Amino acid sequence: MIEIQARGDSFSRCGKMFLAHGEVETPVFMPVGTLATIKAMTHERVAELGYRLILANTYHLYLRPGKETFDRVGGLHGFTPWRFNYLTDSGGYQVFSLAELARVKPEGVSFQSHIDGSRHFFSPEMVIDFQASMRSDVAMPLDVCTPPGIEHKKARNAMELTHEWLRRSLDHRRRYESWDGKVFGIVQGNFYEDLRRESVQRVVQLEPDGIAVGGLSVGETQEQFEEALSWIKLYLPEDKPRYVMGIGTPDLIFIAVENGIDMFDCVYPTRVARNGSAMTAEGLIDLTKAMFKEDDRPIQEDCPCTACQQYSRAYLRHLVRSREILGAILLTEHNLTFMKRLMDRIRASIRENNFLGFKKSFLEQYRT
Amino acid sequence: MIEIQARGDSFSRCGKMFLAHGEVETPVFMPVGTLATIKAMTHERVAELGYRLILANTYHLYLRPGKETFDRVGGLHGFTPWRFNYLTDSGGYQVFSLAELARVKPEGVSFQSHIDGSRHFFSPEMVIDFQASMRSDVAMPLDVCTPPGIEHKKARNAMELTHEWLRRSLDHRRRYESWDGKVFGIVQGNFYEDLRRESVQRVVQLEPDGIAVGGLSVGETQEQFEEALSWIKLYLPEDKPRYVMGIGTPDLIFIAVENGIDMFDCVYPTRVARNGSAMTAEGLIDLTKAMFKEDDRPIQEDCPCTACQQYSRAYLRHLVRSREILGAILLTEHNLTFMKRLMDRIRASIRENNFLGFKKSFLEQYRT
Repeated sequence: MIEIQARGDSFSRCGKMFLAHGEVETPVFMPVGTLATIKAMTHERVAELGYRLILANTYHLYLRPGKETFDRVGGLHGFTPWRFNYLTDSGGYQVFSLAELARVKPEGVSFQSHIDGSRHFFSPEMVIDFQASMRSDVAMPLDVCTPPGIEHKKARNAMELTHEWLRRSLDHRRRYESWDGKVFGIVQGNFYEDLRRESVQRVVQLEPDGIAVGGLSVGETQEQFEEALSWIKLYLPEDKPRYVMGIGTPDLIFIAVENGIDMFDCVYPTRVARNGSAMTAEGLIDLTKAMFKEDDRPIQEDCPCTACQQYSRAYLRHLVRSREILGAILLTEHNLTFMKRLMDRIRASIRENNFLGFKKSFLEQYRT
Repeated sequence: MIEIQARGDSFSRCGKMFLAHGEVETPVFMPVGTLATIKAMTHERVAELGYRLILANTYHLYLRPGKETFDRVGGLHGFTPWRFNYLTDSGGYQVFSLAELARVKPEGVSFQSHIDGSRHFFSPEMVIDFQASMRSDVAMPLDVCTPPGIEHKKARNAMELTHEWLRRSLDHRRRYESWDGKVFGIVQGNFYEDLRRESVQRVVQLEPDGIAVGGLSVGETQEQFEEALSWIKLYLPEDKPRYVMGIGTPDLIFIAVENGIDMFDCVYPTRVARNGSAMTAEGLIDLTKAMFKEDDRPIQEDCPCTACQQYSRAYLRHLVRSREILGAILLTEHNLTFMKRLMDRIRASIRENNFLGFKKSFLEQYRT
């Protein structure tokens, strides 16, 4: 399902994934559409920006509108006008971070809805069933997420259960012959080198369609993030897509690509947009600041987005300070345009065998 | 500045207004862009829907970003990418309804900002100055708004001051030779027949560019609204545009057109959209209701807007219940499309001399 077309310096690589709703060029950044919609954007505009794969959250969509709706309308593509690919997460991360009273048993995890407190239960099989109902193009198995700093024994237990749940998920997935979604395996192991190495090898043995790295971007330092990827990169099979979940700042994306990762997702570009911040070559700028009051320039001169082509920083500041929805609309489009162009340049630099040079020159300018 | 092209049955009429930023077909509904932007819409999309005249609020823009900004960038058109006409209100209505501690003196009105409590003063001259800084295409003079139910003497005093302020406004407007904005006069007189008749005649004598009717849509019944218009309609000069401020529901628009009115504005279509309601030929529908959970139809079959062309009622319900910004975006575009098409049909019915027939058939279907 992935064709590697070029290998760059370091472990970087670029290629194409073949999914049920069209091809996706990698490395790829996937915007997060929690409720099957990128906040403040129409699906049409997201497609026009060049995105071909977006994320939707299993946990949220399970609670509302629920499985029945997707069964009735024929999945996410029957519910929304998005004609390209959806990746759906497993819901595990939200169960552990957002829901109340998550309790893990070998059979699955029970939790309370953050919306109305109602009690629910996810088993690995149920999560596959729900993603099959959504007719997801790339589905994630239920996994056990652990916070950084837990002891080795607990990290091992969570990892073992994650592997067992992956085995059950892949078994269960075989029931759905008419569903052409891919199912990835998730590597866990917290920040322990031995566990990470063991996890990636065990996951690879189970032969999922792709390998996702979980449990990163949970508050660790950039060095810890880089180290964790370095432990596993040698064990990643060449012929399968590799996905690091939950990253979206340029610095982490560069590290991930350098370590051979093909896919990433994060709410970062869209969330900071709704808070009034715009991504630029010089780093994030906070448009609520007084320094932009008389700044009649666009956010970025060479950017083709609606905000940069039609609006000044001064007017955008007026919008975000007044909490106008248009501010969120324009900055979301800008940040997604920025991320799309960044990924285009990363892919070009890999083809030109100059990924590390591009990384260096970009990050010298980009202040985090 | 207005060319009447057809007179229909009743007092209805249709024509064209010639303004600094292009022609406007009348009768016209003007969406309200309080902060110089229609909430949840890009200026480009509003233009694509066919709107050529939108409203911006003097009171809000005076407080933020303030006069200096407009002087620096050359007005509303230097600040925003809207290339067509802006009508700016006088700020009077907001001073009396939104600001704190409004105190009227012959010189003007003092008030406290609803944002930060700071004290401000508007004189008729200052309001013209500010609208000249905004380079408004249609400006309103400062007037004194009174609530329904006040005694005759108080209504007379407010009316007299409104007339005096109009005289001062028109005098002051002559200082701005290079500004090609129009200045209307506002008819007051509360719900007293003698005052309304006197007010319209006195306003007409002062020869403003157009006649606005103030103090309506303040909680009166539909019959009172209709009666108030009937008192003044005989005194409205044929060669000037007539504007009823603050109306936007189809029933009141039909009554206004029937009484010879050319222009209206209201937050109604855009505000109800943000609350999850869509305008249809059968009336307003509240998409948060359970009855739409499995409704896979578009809001309205024959509507060309993005919501109706690409999204089902069930998905729109999911968006508005989840308070997704996309819900506000899509319903705002839908309701503005609905209003634009309603006005197109009203103008066509006037040309066909069948305005009252169209009014009857439309309102029979449209449940309020």
